[in-house]
Amino acid sequence: MSKKDGQPIRVALLGCGTVGSEVARLLTEQAGELAARAGAPVEIVGIAVRRPDKHPELPQDLLTSDAASLVVSENVDVIVELVGGIEPVREWLLAGLKAGKSVVTANKALLADHSAELFEAADASGVDLYFEASVAGAIPLLRPLRESLAGDRITRVMGIVNGTTNFILSAMDETGAGYSETLDEASRLGYAEADPTADVDGYDAASKAAILASLSFHTRVTASDVHREGIADVTASDISAARLLGRAVKLLAICERVRDDNGVESVSVRVHPVMIPLSHQLARVNGAFNAVYVEADAAGELMFYGQGAGGAPTASAVLGDLVAVARNMVGGGRGPRESAHAALPVRPMGQTPTRYHVSLDVADIAGVLAQVAQVFADHGVSIAAVRQRDRHSTASLVVITHLAPDAALQSTVDEIAKLDVVHEVVSVMRVEGED
Amino acid sequence: MSKKDGQPIRVALLGCGTVGSEVARLLTEQAGELAARAGAPVEIVGIAVRRPDKHPELPQDLLTSDAASLVVSENVDVIVELVGGIEPVREWLLAGLKAGKSVVTANKALLADHSAELFEAADASGVDLYFEASVAGAIPLLRPLRESLAGDRITRVMGIVNGTTNFILSAMDETGAGYSETLDEASRLGYAEADPTADVDGYDAASKAAILASLSFHTRVTASDVHREGIADVTASDISAARLLGRAVKLLAICERVRDDNGVESVSVRVHPVMIPLSHQLARVNGAFNAVYVEADAAGELMFYGQGAGGAPTASAVLGDLVAVARNMVGGGRGPRESAHAALPVRPMGQTPTRYHVSLDVADIAGVLAQVAQVFADHGVSIAAVRQRDRHSTASLVVITHLAPDAALQSTVDEIAKLDVVHEVVSVMRVEGED
Repeated sequence: MSKKDGQPIRVALLGCGTVGSEVARLLTEQAGELAARAGAPVEIVGIAVRRPDKHPELPQDLLTSDAASLVVSENVDVIVELVGGIEPVREWLLAGLKAGKSVVTANKALLADHSAELFEAADASGVDLYFEASVAGAIPLLRPLRESLAGDRITRVMGIVNGTTNFILSAMDETGAGYSETLDEASRLGYAEADPTADVDGYDAASKAAILASLSFHTRVTASDVHREGIADVTASDISAARLLGRAVKLLAICERVRDDNGVESVSVRVHPVMIPLSHQLARVNGAFNAVYVEADAAGELMFYGQGAGGAPTASAVLGDLVAVARNMVGGGRGPRESAHAALPVRPMGQTPTRYHVSLDVADIAGVLAQVAQVFADHGVSIAAVRQRDRHSTASLVVITHLAPDAALQSTVDEIAKLDVVHEVVSVMRVEGED
Repeated sequence: MSKKDGQPIRVALLGCGTVGSEVARLLTEQAGELAARAGAPVEIVGIAVRRPDKHPELPQDLLTSDAASLVVSENVDVIVELVGGIEPVREWLLAGLKAGKSVVTANKALLADHSAELFEAADASGVDLYFEASVAGAIPLLRPLRESLAGDRITRVMGIVNGTTNFILSAMDETGAGYSETLDEASRLGYAEADPTADVDGYDAASKAAILASLSFHTRVTASDVHREGIADVTASDISAARLLGRAVKLLAICERVRDDNGVESVSVRVHPVMIPLSHQLARVNGAFNAVYVEADAAGELMFYGQGAGGAPTASAVLGDLVAVARNMVGGGRGPRESAHAALPVRPMGQTPTRYHVSLDVADIAGVLAQVAQVFADHGVSIAAVRQRDRHSTASLVVITHLAPDAALQSTVDEIAKLDVVHEVVSVMRVEGED
C-alpha cells in the first residue's frame, strides 16, 4: 500500500499502558516534526484497550475494546502493538498483516517464537514488520544489526538486555547482600515486577537472545533454542569471588557463531550469569541500563548502550519504526524482510565451548591440587589459571579453565564436588570476555 | 532504477586504497552471503584509480583511470566513492547521480560541505545517497540518527570522532608528556599522518560535526558553521589539571540544541578540547577508538562505541550501505532523503552557553580570590566551584563556572590574565558532561 505525499498514515494502537500512552503523547506533541520526517501526517485512528471505561484521559471516540475488528479496519494503515504476550496478539497481527497493514511491535515473546509466520504474512501482503523496541528498549540495535551490518559477518553478540536482573546484580555487588533480600529491595523500588519470574529466571532475556541471534546469523532461532539460566542461584559468594578476580557478575544474552573441528558452523544462543573482567565494556554497565556488545569480522568490536525499558525510551524506538513505515508508504519502498538464508544449526549447550570459574573450599593438606587437577584432566578440560590460599584448617582453591565443551565442564564440577578433600564448592560460573 | 531478483547490482569503485581494497575483498569473499541478503548479486564492474599500472593485484580488465566516464557508464548501478577530498569527486558524484546511479561514500569533507546539492541530485533521479562510513567508521551511527531516532527529538550529540587526536590525548594522559613529543610518537606508530593538520587542528572532526548536526537537527550545517579548535594548544598542565579534578581531556565534536530566553531554538556545533568527568562514558574511551554519546528527549542517553577508522571497519560500513542500496533496487524502495525541515539557525560560538575551567597561579596574599571573583561577576559569569592551594610564595586557584555565553567567559579570562595578582594562567578549558 503506498501513500501520496500529504495523505495521513493512519495508526491503530493496541494497548495503551506505559509505552502506549507515551507513543500517543509524542505523536500528538511532535505531529508537525514527525509529518515532516515521515513525508505525511501520522495519526492515531483507533486505540484498542481491554477496558475503555478505565481510560478517561484518552479521546473517547478513538477507544474500542474490539482489537480484532480494529486491526482489519479499512481506515487503518499501520498497527502499533504494545499489548505483549502471545495470544490473542498473534492472531490480531496475522489478521492485520493479511489485511495489508504494516506492523510495529515491541513484543519480544511473540517475535522470539513466531517471527517466521509473521514475516511470511508481511511478505505475502508486501507490508512491513518492524520491532526495534522488542530488544534493549531505546537503544538502536536491531536496525544496525539488520541494516548497518548487513555487509559484515557478525561473530558474537553479548548483551545486558534485562534491566531488572542487572539492577539486582549491581546492587548485590555494591552492598554485598544476598539474592533474595536484593530482589525484595528491587521490588520495593519498582525495579522488579510483582511476579519477577520472567526477568530473574531469564525468560525475558532468552526471548531477546533468540531475536538477536536470528538477525545476527540469518538463521531462525526461537526461545526454545536458547539455553537459559537465571540469576536466582547467584550468591554473595559468587559476587565476592568475582571481585577477588577483578571480575563482575552479569546476566548476559550470548549469541555466538561457533565452528567445529571440521569447519562446520553452528550458533550457540544462551542466557546465563557470567563473570566478565572489570576492564570489559559490559562490566561497567550498572543499574537498569542495557548494553549490547557486538563483534563482527570487518567492523571489529562495537558497543551500544542506553535505556532498555521505560515508557518514553521504548516509545522512541516505536516511533522510529513508525516513521520508517510511513516513509516506506510514502516512498513506495519496503523495510528489510526476514533474512534466514544461512539456516545454521543451533548447537546444544553441552557441546558449546565455554570457560568455567570454579572456587572451592578444600582441605589444607598436600596433594589437593593434584587430585583436583586430575579430575579436570580426566574430562579433557585444560586449566588456564589456579589460585590457592590458606585459611585456618581449610584452603581456598580457585580454578579458571580454558574453553571446553560445557558438558565436560559440568561433569568435571560434579565429580570434583564428590572428592573427599573438597569441603564445599563455593562458586561455579562461566567466564566470558577474555578469550 | 529497480532490479528484478537475481539481476546483479553493478558497482563502480572509485579509489582502491586501504578501504577500497577491503571492500573489493569482502565483496568477493562474501559474495554468496551478500547476494542472499541483498536479494541480488553485488558485483564490481569497474575500479577507477589514478595509476592503474600501480595495481597489479587487481583484475586488470576492471581498472581504469577515467573515473569521469566510469561514473556515467550504462553498466553501472551504484558508485562507491573512496577517493576523498572535494574536487574532482564532487563533479563525478553529481554526474553519476544525474545519470541515475546511487552513491555510497565515506567522504566526510564532501558531505559536510555539499550534501545539499548531492541530495538534490539524488532526489531528482530517485536514487540513493548513503554515507555511514563518513563519520565514526564502523560504528553504526548515521543510520540510527536518521532512522531509529526519526521519531524522537535529539537534543545533544557529543562524540570522540577522530582517532588520531584521541590517541594523542590518551597518550599524554598516560605518560605526562607534552603535545609535540606525543604527536611525534603517534607519527612513528602510524597513528598520525605525515601531515597531521586535518586531524590535530580539528578539521576532520569539524566535517563530522557538521554531518552529525545536520542529521540530528534536520538542519543544513556545513563545516564553515562549526566552531573549531584543535589540540595543538593542549598542554601537559591542562591534562594534569584535569586529573586533579577527576576529569579527562578529550577533543569532542559537540552538537547541541540550544534554546534562548525567548524559547527560540538554534543549534550550536563545535569542536574543541574539553574536560569531562572520569565518570562519563566518553572519558573511558581511549586510544584510537571512537564513541558518540547521544541525548534525545524520549530515548534518554545512548552511546555508540567502536572503531572509527581502518580499512576493514570502514569497509563494513560501506558494505552495509551497499546492501541497503541493493535491497532498495530489488524491492523498489528508497533510502532516507535529506531531512532539513527544521532549518534552525546556527548559534555563533560567542553566544553559545559553555562552562569553563580556569586554573591560575596567583600571589599568595589575602584578597586574591575576591579580585578574581569580581572579574567573573563583572562579566555576569557565575562561579560553580573554587579550589585554592598554597605553594611556597604562590598559590594555585582553580575556578569552575556555571554556564555562561562563551564570549563572556573568554573576556573574563582575558581580563583575569591582566590582574597583577595573577602570575600565570595555567590552564583554560571548557567543561562538558556534568550539567
